[in-house]
Amino acid sequence: MDKIQTLAWRNGKLVLLDQTLLPNEICYKELSTEKEVFDAIRTMVVRGAPAIGVSAAYAMVLAAHEVDKEDFEPFIVDYEALGEHLSKSRPTAVNLNWAINRMIKCAHANKNFSVSKIREKLEQEAIAIHNEDLQINRKIGENLLSLLKRGDTVLTHCNAGALATSEYGTALSVFYLAQEKNFPLKAYANETRPRLQGARLTSFELYHAGVDVTLISDNMAAVLMSQGKVDAVIVGCDRVAANGDVANKIGTFNVSILAKHFNIPMYIATPTPTIDFDCITGESIPIEERDGEEIATINGVRIAPEGIKTYNPSFDVTPAENITAIVTEKGIAYPPFDVSLKDVFNN
Amino acid sequence: MDKIQTLAWRNGKLVLLDQTLLPNEICYKELSTEKEVFDAIRTMVVRGAPAIGVSAAYAMVLAAHEVDKEDFEPFIVDYEALGEHLSKSRPTAVNLNWAINRMIKCAHANKNFSVSKIREKLEQEAIAIHNEDLQINRKIGENLLSLLKRGDTVLTHCNAGALATSEYGTALSVFYLAQEKNFPLKAYANETRPRLQGARLTSFELYHAGVDVTLISDNMAAVLMSQGKVDAVIVGCDRVAANGDVANKIGTFNVSILAKHFNIPMYIATPTPTIDFDCITGESIPIEERDGEEIATINGVRIAPEGIKTYNPSFDVTPAENITAIVTEKGIAYPPFDVSLKDVFNN
Repeated sequence: MDKIQTLAWRNGKLVLLDQTLLPNEICYKELSTEKEVFDAIRTMVVRGAPAIGVSAAYAMVLAAHEVDKEDFEPFIVDYEALGEHLSKSRPTAVNLNWAINRMIKCAHANKNFSVSKIREKLEQEAIAIHNEDLQINRKIGENLLSLLKRGDTVLTHCNAGALATSEYGTALSVFYLAQEKNFPLKAYANETRPRLQGARLTSFELYHAGVDVTLISDNMAAVLMSQGKVDAVIVGCDRVAANGDVANKIGTFNVSILAKHFNIPMYIATPTPTIDFDCITGESIPIEERDGEEIATINGVRIAPEGIKTYNPSFDVTPAENITAIVTEKGIAYPPFDVSLKDVFNN
Repeated sequence: MDKIQTLAWRNGKLVLLDQTLLPNEICYKELSTEKEVFDAIRTMVVRGAPAIGVSAAYAMVLAAHEVDKEDFEPFIVDYEALGEHLSKSRPTAVNLNWAINRMIKCAHANKNFSVSKIREKLEQEAIAIHNEDLQINRKIGENLLSLLKRGDTVLTHCNAGALATSEYGTALSVFYLAQEKNFPLKAYANETRPRLQGARLTSFELYHAGVDVTLISDNMAAVLMSQGKVDAVIVGCDRVAANGDVANKIGTFNVSILAKHFNIPMYIATPTPTIDFDCITGESIPIEERDGEEIATINGVRIAPEGIKTYNPSFDVTPAENITAIVTEKGIAYPPFDVSLKDVFNN
């Protein structure tokens, strides 16, 4: 198989792998406007908090070229409006706003340059965000690996992998680092209904990388745990509150309760930009509800009667008390998280 | 909508609703040999322990006509061999063996009659098993209802409904009884991956009956429970061990751990023939593993890469300590189940 690339910046355009078509088709989309990136984020062509963040940064480069103003003041008004629009594409991922704000800050910091020069500076800033993501993920993988024993089996949920980031992934980085270091490690992937990111993405990327991975339905996690087949649960996340509550893909809360029941460590893999210190607890994290058709149909085929009521929250909040450690590129935070997250962040 | 009928005995043939085609097609199959019923059970045209039991009883009527022997001794040898074959169609459901054994016992009890007369007696026995199932389900529904308050919301997993029995269902009987008595009751249905019985069957039959039902992915149960939206969990089961361990559809164990975590009562609805006193604990219940393609494809479309490893146990065993009560047609058993199940059974 050809090497899969999640995203790339090429000739002033953002190239995205269309993840809605995986694992059956490998198709890239070339995007040249903020609106096109907005749509790609909204429809989950690109997904995963870090990949959304990097995509948003490049979208803000595209936006800078779309604003047809050559004086700073009118430029920044329109530029911030496009940033405001882009931030509405997915409500839960904190990296989205983090990247947009960093780009807007960069524009302000260069206000004394010409707008043309500011556009160049913005492109450099987006490329820097992209490169930082690569380094962050590698470091998260190293920190995760320090928590495991040779021969361990790790259960993961959703896709916090290379496909969710620039490369390596957050939760899945540990498998790629383990490969590089000849450290034996096996994976179970929860398929992650309703959108099946575990089946379509995690099992796809791990299998193609040669990692020993077994796909299960989300319903099989308790059986595996009861059989002693899971040594740790590692997942990514979309937002960490200051107290250590964690928003991640729907079903993470379920898995955390199972892990706690069986005394299995539950690790959250996340870059520090995902920590939202303004968010005191998980209760204030907005949870996106998506269209019920995601539950009532699969691949366009109805699996439930026409007209059925559904409830389809896309994320849930795992309370801090179910989490063993939050593993970042700057170090590992243990409870109590209100103290340790700040220590790690300021590291 | 026309009234849905799960199974019927008509003109010496077994008529089964093909449940693999629900909710998109309503199609009946007419079966006239033991082998045809074997295939229907194996491929889940008919499913649900009680419906499998009743179908197996009728299959044994068909088998009696297939055995072309008019003396009892050669007849019973071939007849028992067909029963042995039929018992292999699904390994976990105890009702299957229970029904087959009851039919064989009936043949032996009538050994002094002509084989032709024995065939008549066997048909009467199967019809009796069928009628008993109807009465049992109604009584289970009444007993379940005694545990609930008006306005409660009940989460269920898989399909232990009218479609899993002759009528009413075991777990779902409570909703039909509540309707008859104007007792307000709402349902959440776990979709129940991998085979989606909750989406295809439970939400289908409750919705068409006018019950207030909301379909969720299995991953959403913890969120609902944490929001205080689930007053009780009620599921059916395929086998109860003497100590109260319960084999049921994969994912039941997960839900039981969540219910325990949130202090929500977990009720098992089951007819007494499902209690297997020869089975001391859940550890000795054989668990069927099904083809991994059930996980890797949906409606013939691949959702995971070709060649991916899977693990697909069709059932799990919920330990007795996670169960609040086992509700049968003869009464309600509470812990310790090793005592109470016998008391209820002998009631």
